[in-house]
Amino acid sequence: MDELVIKGQKAKIAAQDLAIIPTEKKNEALRLIANELMDKRSFIIQENEKDLNNGRFSGLSQSILDRLMLNEKRIEEMVKSLQILIDLDDPIGEIIESWERPNGLRIKKVRVPLGVIGMIYEARPNVTVDAASLAIKTGNAILLRGSSSAIHSNKAIIQVIHDALRKTVIPPFSVQLIEEKGHEITDRMLRLHGYIDVLIPRGSAKFIQYVVENSSLPVIETGAGNCHVYIDQDANYEMAKQIIINAKTQRPSVCNAAETLLVHRDFARNHLPELITSLEELNVECRGCTQTISMLPHLTQATEEDWATEYLDLILAVKVVENVDEAIEHINRYGTKHSEVIVTNNRNDAKKFMESVDAAVVYHNASSRFTDGFEFGFGAEIGISTQKLHARGPMGLKALTSYKYMVLGNGQIR
Amino acid sequence: MDELVIKGQKAKIAAQDLAIIPTEKKNEALRLIANELMDKRSFIIQENEKDLNNGRFSGLSQSILDRLMLNEKRIEEMVKSLQILIDLDDPIGEIIESWERPNGLRIKKVRVPLGVIGMIYEARPNVTVDAASLAIKTGNAILLRGSSSAIHSNKAIIQVIHDALRKTVIPPFSVQLIEEKGHEITDRMLRLHGYIDVLIPRGSAKFIQYVVENSSLPVIETGAGNCHVYIDQDANYEMAKQIIINAKTQRPSVCNAAETLLVHRDFARNHLPELITSLEELNVECRGCTQTISMLPHLTQATEEDWATEYLDLILAVKVVENVDEAIEHINRYGTKHSEVIVTNNRNDAKKFMESVDAAVVYHNASSRFTDGFEFGFGAEIGISTQKLHARGPMGLKALTSYKYMVLGNGQIR
Repeated sequence: MDELVIKGQKAKIAAQDLAIIPTEKKNEALRLIANELMDKRSFIIQENEKDLNNGRFSGLSQSILDRLMLNEKRIEEMVKSLQILIDLDDPIGEIIESWERPNGLRIKKVRVPLGVIGMIYEARPNVTVDAASLAIKTGNAILLRGSSSAIHSNKAIIQVIHDALRKTVIPPFSVQLIEEKGHEITDRMLRLHGYIDVLIPRGSAKFIQYVVENSSLPVIETGAGNCHVYIDQDANYEMAKQIIINAKTQRPSVCNAAETLLVHRDFARNHLPELITSLEELNVECRGCTQTISMLPHLTQATEEDWATEYLDLILAVKVVENVDEAIEHINRYGTKHSEVIVTNNRNDAKKFMESVDAAVVYHNASSRFTDGFEFGFGAEIGISTQKLHARGPMGLKALTSYKYMVLGNGQIR
Repeated sequence: MDELVIKGQKAKIAAQDLAIIPTEKKNEALRLIANELMDKRSFIIQENEKDLNNGRFSGLSQSILDRLMLNEKRIEEMVKSLQILIDLDDPIGEIIESWERPNGLRIKKVRVPLGVIGMIYEARPNVTVDAASLAIKTGNAILLRGSSSAIHSNKAIIQVIHDALRKTVIPPFSVQLIEEKGHEITDRMLRLHGYIDVLIPRGSAKFIQYVVENSSLPVIETGAGNCHVYIDQDANYEMAKQIIINAKTQRPSVCNAAETLLVHRDFARNHLPELITSLEELNVECRGCTQTISMLPHLTQATEEDWATEYLDLILAVKVVENVDEAIEHINRYGTKHSEVIVTNNRNDAKKFMESVDAAVVYHNASSRFTDGFEFGFGAEIGISTQKLHARGPMGLKALTSYKYMVLGNGQIR
């Protein structure tokens, strides 16, 4: 039997134990992992150095090397996240609902772990700690498939986690790294029925798409955000300006940043040149539709591709629309069901937009940048789901749980 | 472009309209469908006759022909289900949660439709009405892929549904039948990204498994039930007897019927022969483990295969176990995560069993036959999910919904 199946079996057994481990034991394990990470940080940094050297040698880009790099500060950040996680409520065991049937059966819907999580991710060794600790907190076992360019770092971190878990009642097999090289093993992981309950891919939009299209296991899709801000006829200029500036420029590289600005033609006539100037002063490159260009001839013409692009950069596509209906239509055509904003003082337009736009989060008069587990008050974030099943939008710990029904009777039969 | 993609596009457009159609309009459509079904019942029965003739000619089994057959009574049953559905609460628009953040943002988690449902099913034309009406009630569009052996019946039913929908604001494209013949189109449906939000296969365990393993779309798996009744040391004999008799014999062909009886060795010593006699008097064939056979030498020896088999028949595998731990281990190894029962007066054993058995529904002192949407009080049943994501156990209307976050601000930025 191969590594993958053996690890799958061990994970399944560990998951059974983990499901009923009490909160304080799970928190104790997280505390011990935090201590162990601090104690062994020079070992981890030294192993990480090997990955960095190999990466430099094989010509990895500077941005990938930066993501790969671990230093004292980054390890301290991991430890800080662990401490926040320890303080969060344990979702497992929560009675979500309970009721009694006329025949006297008492039904309780109780929150339980998912079982075994499969995590596939790129060269960010911090995800190893992050994913393992979220799994432990929610009583799930986890199979980690990191990038081979981070193999030394990941092995070191897993060794540290195992050293910590050996001092607890939590089976070390709860957290396992798939070490075998090559894409073939990743592809087999996408079809490991019977051992993995859910796959969570993390990385580029293209990579996540690959996992979604090739996996026959349930996938939690944390997807791309081609987010729009629509400024309606009846918008307050100052509010609209602050929102689009924030949504575009506060952190352009993230999925909840805005990529296209839609402007009602009346608002555009009165305010678009001034608004574009404000954006350009902040180094935003604007690409406009024909109507935009007619008002601002110095802009580049936006193409069909622009409407569908998540720039993740200081670039903004700009389109003038007839009304809220055209804005909704545009968004439902090009959007990625992530976060969409309307700025307006018109209640009817706001209502129509909020109801008809198909997205995880729709905003009335606020920036799309709030689509975030912490900003929503969840205390943790697994990612932002752009799918509609299981979990949608910012995912907290509950996204890593399922439920079971416990039915109590006194001899009821049908 | 082919039929499938064209229908997918139309479904997607219909879904956008459907998502915001008010409850009374949806109920009106269901009422009109019910009327139209009654009015055109002789047309439907006449078209069904064509399928039955073709089926007899091509040698379909009697049980398949029976499932395929429509008559006045069966159409009246469809109409009755429609009336029940009309009276159920509309889940769409429900505010699941709402809260306010320190920065003043008000967040509402609102229930919305999934979008487009893909339903793949075998030769039961009643599923066509059932699935279409559940989809309409929950604001979802639906693509139906029925068996080609029911094509005339399904086309007739769809025609009737479309005639009804044309008198309403609901786009007829909300309900579409994929008519093209052959397995190839089904396989393409399993990968129709961008048009289908969720697939629901209905049919044999083998067929559902095929869909799960070959689909790259999210699937709601309504699976097999290899259900167990475990009689603990401290069980009341009469209660245990009634529960296993009910779970095995009340309707042996369904997924929540029991397939294996596990008996604590002390209970077995005192009661097993008498219990087996009671089951045999009801024509149940028992197959025993070695210990069972040593007490009841006339029984057939159960093999490894028996522990894993969902008989769906008056056959029961019987195994004597040391204690509740062995029972749990056996169930977690051979069970299909459906419905599992412990009969005991011992609270600790019950607690351990309920917490450690990994199944959608766990029962203490009640029959597994209660795993059912109506018995749970949901008023409808989409099926019984044996997966852990999105929906688990009996699924009511809510299983066909997702949610979106509506965030109301007054200019908040990060």
